[in-house]
Amino acid sequence: MTVLIRGGTVVNADAEHRADVLCQGDKILQVGTDLQVPAGAEVVDAGGAYVMPGGIDPHTHMQLPFMGTVAADDFFSGTAAGLAGGTTSIIDFVIPDPQQSLMDAFRMWRGWAEKSAGDYSFHVAVTWWNDSVHKDMGTLVHEHGVNSFKHFMAYKNAIMADDEILVKSFQRSLELGAMPTVHAENGELVAMLQQQLLAQGIRGPEGHPLSRPPMVEAEAANRAIAIADVLGVPIYVVHVSCGEALDAITRARARGQRVYGEVLAGHLVVDESAYRDPDFARAAAHVMSPPFRSRENQAMLWRGLQGGNLHTTATDHCTFCAEQKAAGRDDFTKIPNGCGGVEERMAVLWDAGVNAGRLTPSEFVRVTSTNAAQLFNLYPRKGVIQPGADADIVVWDPKATKTLSVKTQHSKSDFNIFEGRQVTGVPRHTVSAGRWVWRNGDLRAEPGTGRYLKRPPFAPMFTALERFKQQHAPTAVAR
Amino acid sequence: MTVLIRGGTVVNADAEHRADVLCQGDKILQVGTDLQVPAGAEVVDAGGAYVMPGGIDPHTHMQLPFMGTVAADDFFSGTAAGLAGGTTSIIDFVIPDPQQSLMDAFRMWRGWAEKSAGDYSFHVAVTWWNDSVHKDMGTLVHEHGVNSFKHFMAYKNAIMADDEILVKSFQRSLELGAMPTVHAENGELVAMLQQQLLAQGIRGPEGHPLSRPPMVEAEAANRAIAIADVLGVPIYVVHVSCGEALDAITRARARGQRVYGEVLAGHLVVDESAYRDPDFARAAAHVMSPPFRSRENQAMLWRGLQGGNLHTTATDHCTFCAEQKAAGRDDFTKIPNGCGGVEERMAVLWDAGVNAGRLTPSEFVRVTSTNAAQLFNLYPRKGVIQPGADADIVVWDPKATKTLSVKTQHSKSDFNIFEGRQVTGVPRHTVSAGRWVWRNGDLRAEPGTGRYLKRPPFAPMFTALERFKQQHAPTAVAR
Amino acid sequence: MTVLIRGGTVVNADAEHRADVLCQGDKILQVGTDLQVPAGAEVVDAGGAYVMPGGIDPHTHMQLPFMGTVAADDFFSGTAAGLAGGTTSIIDFVIPDPQQSLMDAFRMWRGWAEKSAGDYSFHVAVTWWNDSVHKDMGTLVHEHGVNSFKHFMAYKNAIMADDEILVKSFQRSLELGAMPTVHAENGELVAMLQQQLLAQGIRGPEGHPLSRPPMVEAEAANRAIAIADVLGVPIYVVHVSCGEALDAITRARARGQRVYGEVLAGHLVVDESAYRDPDFARAAAHVMSPPFRSRENQAMLWRGLQGGNLHTTATDHCTFCAEQKAAGRDDFTKIPNGCGGVEERMAVLWDAGVNAGRLTPSEFVRVTSTNAAQLFNLYPRKGVIQPGADADIVVWDPKATKTLSVKTQHSKSDFNIFEGRQVTGVPRHTVSAGRWVWRNGDLRAEPGTGRYLKRPPFAPMFTALERFKQQHAPTAVAR
Amino acid sequence: MTVLIRGGTVVNADAEHRADVLCQGDKILQVGTDLQVPAGAEVVDAGGAYVMPGGIDPHTHMQLPFMGTVAADDFFSGTAAGLAGGTTSIIDFVIPDPQQSLMDAFRMWRGWAEKSAGDYSFHVAVTWWNDSVHKDMGTLVHEHGVNSFKHFMAYKNAIMADDEILVKSFQRSLELGAMPTVHAENGELVAMLQQQLLAQGIRGPEGHPLSRPPMVEAEAANRAIAIADVLGVPIYVVHVSCGEALDAITRARARGQRVYGEVLAGHLVVDESAYRDPDFARAAAHVMSPPFRSRENQAMLWRGLQGGNLHTTATDHCTFCAEQKAAGRDDFTKIPNGCGGVEERMAVLWDAGVNAGRLTPSEFVRVTSTNAAQLFNLYPRKGVIQPGADADIVVWDPKATKTLSVKTQHSKSDFNIFEGRQVTGVPRHTVSAGRWVWRNGDLRAEPGTGRYLKRPPFAPMFTALERFKQQHAPTAVAR
Ligand SMILES: [Zn+2]
Ligand SMILES: [Zn+2]
Ligand SMILES: [Zn+2]
Ligand SMILES: [Zn+2]
Ligand SMILES: [Zn+2]
Ligand SMILES: [Zn+2]
Ligand SMILES: [Zn+2]
Ligand SMILES: [Zn+2]
Repeated sequence: MTVLIRGGTVVNADAEHRADVLCQGDKILQVGTDLQVPAGAEVVDAGGAYVMPGGIDPHTHMQLPFMGTVAADDFFSGTAAGLAGGTTSIIDFVIPDPQQSLMDAFRMWRGWAEKSAGDYSFHVAVTWWNDSVHKDMGTLVHEHGVNSFKHFMAYKNAIMADDEILVKSFQRSLELGAMPTVHAENGELVAMLQQQLLAQGIRGPEGHPLSRPPMVEAEAANRAIAIADVLGVPIYVVHVSCGEALDAITRARARGQRVYGEVLAGHLVVDESAYRDPDFARAAAHVMSPPFRSRENQAMLWRGLQGGNLHTTATDHCTFCAEQKAAGRDDFTKIPNGCGGVEERMAVLWDAGVNAGRLTPSEFVRVTSTNAAQLFNLYPRKGVIQPGADADIVVWDPKATKTLSVKTQHSKSDFNIFEGRQVTGVPRHTVSAGRWVWRNGDLRAEPGTGRYLKRPPFAPMFTALERFKQQHAPTAVAR
Repeated sequence: MTVLIRGGTVVNADAEHRADVLCQGDKILQVGTDLQVPAGAEVVDAGGAYVMPGGIDPHTHMQLPFMGTVAADDFFSGTAAGLAGGTTSIIDFVIPDPQQSLMDAFRMWRGWAEKSAGDYSFHVAVTWWNDSVHKDMGTLVHEHGVNSFKHFMAYKNAIMADDEILVKSFQRSLELGAMPTVHAENGELVAMLQQQLLAQGIRGPEGHPLSRPPMVEAEAANRAIAIADVLGVPIYVVHVSCGEALDAITRARARGQRVYGEVLAGHLVVDESAYRDPDFARAAAHVMSPPFRSRENQAMLWRGLQGGNLHTTATDHCTFCAEQKAAGRDDFTKIPNGCGGVEERMAVLWDAGVNAGRLTPSEFVRVTSTNAAQLFNLYPRKGVIQPGADADIVVWDPKATKTLSVKTQHSKSDFNIFEGRQVTGVPRHTVSAGRWVWRNGDLRAEPGTGRYLKRPPFAPMFTALERFKQQHAPTAVAR
Repeated sequence: MTVLIRGGTVVNADAEHRADVLCQGDKILQVGTDLQVPAGAEVVDAGGAYVMPGGIDPHTHMQLPFMGTVAADDFFSGTAAGLAGGTTSIIDFVIPDPQQSLMDAFRMWRGWAEKSAGDYSFHVAVTWWNDSVHKDMGTLVHEHGVNSFKHFMAYKNAIMADDEILVKSFQRSLELGAMPTVHAENGELVAMLQQQLLAQGIRGPEGHPLSRPPMVEAEAANRAIAIADVLGVPIYVVHVSCGEALDAITRARARGQRVYGEVLAGHLVVDESAYRDPDFARAAAHVMSPPFRSRENQAMLWRGLQGGNLHTTATDHCTFCAEQKAAGRDDFTKIPNGCGGVEERMAVLWDAGVNAGRLTPSEFVRVTSTNAAQLFNLYPRKGVIQPGADADIVVWDPKATKTLSVKTQHSKSDFNIFEGRQVTGVPRHTVSAGRWVWRNGDLRAEPGTGRYLKRPPFAPMFTALERFKQQHAPTAVAR
Repeated sequence: MTVLIRGGTVVNADAEHRADVLCQGDKILQVGTDLQVPAGAEVVDAGGAYVMPGGIDPHTHMQLPFMGTVAADDFFSGTAAGLAGGTTSIIDFVIPDPQQSLMDAFRMWRGWAEKSAGDYSFHVAVTWWNDSVHKDMGTLVHEHGVNSFKHFMAYKNAIMADDEILVKSFQRSLELGAMPTVHAENGELVAMLQQQLLAQGIRGPEGHPLSRPPMVEAEAANRAIAIADVLGVPIYVVHVSCGEALDAITRARARGQRVYGEVLAGHLVVDESAYRDPDFARAAAHVMSPPFRSRENQAMLWRGLQGGNLHTTATDHCTFCAEQKAAGRDDFTKIPNGCGGVEERMAVLWDAGVNAGRLTPSEFVRVTSTNAAQLFNLYPRKGVIQPGADADIVVWDPKATKTLSVKTQHSKSDFNIFEGRQVTGVPRHTVSAGRWVWRNGDLRAEPGTGRYLKRPPFAPMFTALERFKQQHAPTAVAR
């Protein structure tokens, strides 16, 4: 299939310029002005529109088994919703149970993901430690294209990684040229606060944010960053939700450390008042970790994005319906954690980012696509519009408006945390691997067309880190 | 016994002024100008001298059993050395083995300390957790005058407290009105670095600082502070040795948290080059944790003292002789950790602090005595020259000079980390509980004259913290 | 006159304890438990009350000629209002016109102040520069007990001091052992913003805060602090109103610089929404500089007080009545700047500070009295309850409540920025120089009973600064 | 002329990959693997080499008339030296005398620059203010391709811009879509310190850094940034030389402000000990402002580059020979300020940056070329290897070594601040506008072949800033 997208403004992370884009098969063939129309090519007019790299959501959990239930969106519905919103790739998570073999879990998730409509890849979580984990990390990197490992610092007595696991797994990641990532919350404090709140009679969803205050997140972020610094490994902090955690990243970056931060679309615009909604279902629907925060924190997160201390935007898309959330009707600690957003992320970022004057269009591309591609070593296959790159493209209409709502969303979830939010700037068309998957409001997702993305280890920063380490190698004193 | 100290400049933390000081029995009876000489009083001329509260060293380890040996200074020699240096009180540490009853350990240390020549008190370490620990903490506070508990965040597989212990013990301390304190180093990182260094062939004392870089300390300090913040308990960080850990304190104080920092005289003036001394004995003699740091860190510590982000000066006095240190001849991780200083602390602080223009005399008193007395609720019995206070006084000669040396020290140790340092400003006389214990270079310490100091819980800050908590108590949403 | 205040809790900055206080003439004679009643002494029962040093307001402008009018409170009504609120001393400002002799201005203000009912002293402003200013600064210090000089960094084309004046005057202050102080706002930016706002049609009081955003204050604070750092002189920043300016102080203190910050009671509890009040008079009544800020800034200021980065609380008491404020009816830049508070400061600080758990009673004393006395070298004559100190005492009833209001205030102003605020904790009695000036709600102020306070130069910190400078004196290279 | 550079690794700011580069005329025509050799093309083997965008030095002063003399390198020798070092474009400065018309000065500099061998552009300095300056700024932007204006905050009584000029010129720059830049040093403090030092007998070059300590720079940087923040204009700080000034940038960026920092190659590797060289000529040869700093500051600058808080690397190339420097033989304030480096910058950055593990090759390209192109709106004509870009290319040999020295340099200067420094990684060939200008050590620069680069205003960030401002526009209260 050959497609010519004509007359738009191509936006990459480095610049924007008027150009046509010619796709052939699943690749971009040419980018230039006044390209000739090849025989048989479909021509699409992108006049007045921006032509941008398809979004990459580096943090989703499709059909995740969690807290006794399974997330509502499977890999098809979830990736399809992404395509409708301009997101053409996701990086999901393989989360082994403690004692479960990493390889077994990996294969299980690979199987579930075969129905994906968009491209996908996996971070693999390290939730326990023994020699087999050490070995499997190697196998995943060398044979299966995994170059990032996830660590949960919360969820005590479940998947929490303590300092011993963090230290060992970060060290192993460094050897393998893979990026360690962390869900940063101090699990001991969460457990203590949950217990105290329940004892005080705070049992509803309002207890959720009270059990996970910003300092709980900031502590864990700082700890993971310190461990990474001592070992000389890069580190990526997922879903940074508050100024205090951002500060830990900002401080580390200011001392030159290779630390990267991710922020969720939800944390940028939804605030904590949701948890005090008198309606249980609405309050519970917002339960995710870290929780939504105050407006002051939102302002700080935007500043982090603007100043280059946060790098990627994601969603942590992990949807549970009202009946699932009801498991915690009388005990907020039992409400399955998770919210949606994979379809809305780019529109929210454009509206509250570009329209509000916080981001330029190039910066929008950088934080919705390019940085994720670079950090997880998918670049320049993904994250840029240039010859040779995958034909993952969103044609963005900056004038069109839309009201985000559960009524019009493509996720299987029964809730939308952005409900009623009106945005200006939405995807007019989406191209994935050279195919039209979203065309003027028509979703053409097909199960199984998404491809598993292998991500090679040893992104360029690893070479620099290794050289630095060699230059500063300790020496013995002759005695 | 009645003593009149005449013609000196009395220095307290709030001001200095010319005044005579009259002591009767073990108390100060009067402070004023031109006091009359009571019948039978001994009159001492303090012309040209400063008359200051006796020093308090809030961090010593006399006759500590540690790493397979026992510290060289016992409670007599250690406290006597303190008296010679103007320090009239120490706060030492009871350190139970994991699984050992806190009460048993406390009684053991109390027995050892009976020979003390100066007043003493105890912080008690929480090195493990079960219901008996919870209960014993209460007994110690209510019946034995303990108002502070210590936590080692390093020394894995020995006395290290993990996050679970920290959270539980801090919470218990809060209930009891007692101050939690921490030795801040991430024990997991230390263990990993030790192993890596040994594997790389770095086996000498130079490996010691390499296994405990500043970030290892800063991480732990930040973590303890965050836990304290979340629980609403004050926190005291012992032996802050580097700018990065100080920064964690400074940030917390800037947000209004009640965090306090201690710095050792050694960390203020001795630097890390000692570990690369080609002579093993000299290098090993400097092995303590945290290690001595770079000169830049020294400058930062001074700034912390000046700006009020560090509060007390101590020594961690814990002496091991060359033959003891030799246990780590071929493996630095086996060198018993500890250095002396209880005698030299005040002279070092005066010379490098007051003479160097970093501290006023009142600030000197504040950081060598008053702040420790206030933080550990011994004030105004200790820490100030005023009627009713204990007659613990040092008459300070700001013009006299001395060269610090193992040859002239009173510690039983065979090493002096300040060897050869010339100081101007030394104690001319020391009065402890109304008795002359140091008189013009004559040490008159007597075993058993030191008294155990009970310290009541609930210093005033606890009331404020409790009020604040009540004002911010969480509430349930009616649904 | 002899007065025995019996049965209260004496609170000083260092501690609180139950004690009686005996005053004879204008001094405190004794502080102790169970003091005997001297013949002829009046005995006052202070049971259940706190007995604290009289407040010091280090920043007031009584009968100030400013912006074409004169402040409503004269030195009698203003100091009397202070006494009713527990404040027994003020430090006001002599503000010469550019080109006016400092000595002439000083004599003028001294004349105006003779009617004061409470003790008073003067900072003198340096609003221009030539040799006579240099000389007069010396005369003021050596002969008139002035030890602080004020600099306005705002008010362009009026009293603004540019960098050249700041540098010269700070240097001169250092030589004289006097403290430079600054009103920190960048006058150029204010002028530009005022002009832009008026041009945009923003002419009401809402334009006032818009013309003086936090960054305008932070810049000036940072600049003054940097100049002081380079010259090696201490610096005191008046009316710090926002987190950004506080940050400049906090950073400087963290590097050990002797920087001190003052915060106004109003800035701690009144917020910027006042300027958008639809009633011009109410909005205009809040016009002062720096303006009231957002609630986030209030929280940060409290944190500054708690963490020791702010030191004193003041009011900038400078009252203008509605008809005076009306001069700026159509142009906010013409509204006379100033608000009251000298009577309410201590009650506001107690209620929002001590009752709210932010401050202990000792910390309250420190920030309402002791620190001001120490910084401006009035200590221990002022700022402490101890024998020999001035008998300036407030007997504080922590249970009594009051609603602050223009209807009950003693200021001549027709407005109260704390209108309707209910406070718990108010002065039951005030003693000034040994006389009852406020007794159970009865104000007994008398014109002319207040005394001019001479303040000696060279507080102890100057010696330390001088020593430090000598140790770091530059040396020439021999060539 | 057609050139095919074959077999190298093309490095852009976003990625590196093996590719051939085909240049035709003065443009890059194609980048790809296994490109065909066009007829008549010259083929160069770049095996083992990196093929990178030509360097941009955004800060030079060729033949600058300054301090009574004229810089030794003219536009030919200076740009030629740049070409030998891989730098194909410079941005120099037009510096009008106060009262001199900006247009007159601009025309004068344009004339001098006609002999340039490499491409060049001009920042124009605003050294005074009246209506003609306001008007000329418009003319320069609209008609002459100037999009940046420079402000000297130092050099009192000469070209110093005070706050009034800064505020007016920044505001004007914003209207014009031009970037304000600052030389950040507080001129009043420098003047005072110079005077004090001379009075103390410090007359040699060692007085130079003493008169310009880091805080002098940090204050000015902070001030310029604050003014820019209040006005909503981006800001670029030239030659950031110390941690304190970098901190001001880092803080601003952390709050989302569009602030950019430049660092000089010299400040990254040369330290302040040079000024205490007993040889006057060597010491004086290092006199430039801001001066070289301590090694700690160098480490911080590297961290700034790594963490993205510093963006460009430059040289401030401005050479004066020994006889010129001798003007300040007896008074360091008379030594003409300036050092060289335009030839050495890229090699120094590669060796101390890439080889030392601080930067990846892509980051090297970013800070030596791409960022400068983007910030000054020359991108993608400059700063990237891609079809359509100018054929400005350096073929970099990462294995070749060289010893930097005055003996082998191409600058006319008689000194080299990097003398004796051995570097690994040097330019093998340089292509400028499609012509070989440096070929295996053979310099083929020709006067007049360099082109004046027009730079359009309103880089994309201006649109974002404008939108943000509109969203936050002040509104009047209806009364
Ligand atoms: Zn998570
Ligand atoms: Zn997640
Ligand atoms: Zn310790
Ligand atoms: Zn210890
Ligand atoms: Zn003011
Ligand atoms: Zn004022
Ligand atoms: Zn410059
Ligand atoms: Zn320059």
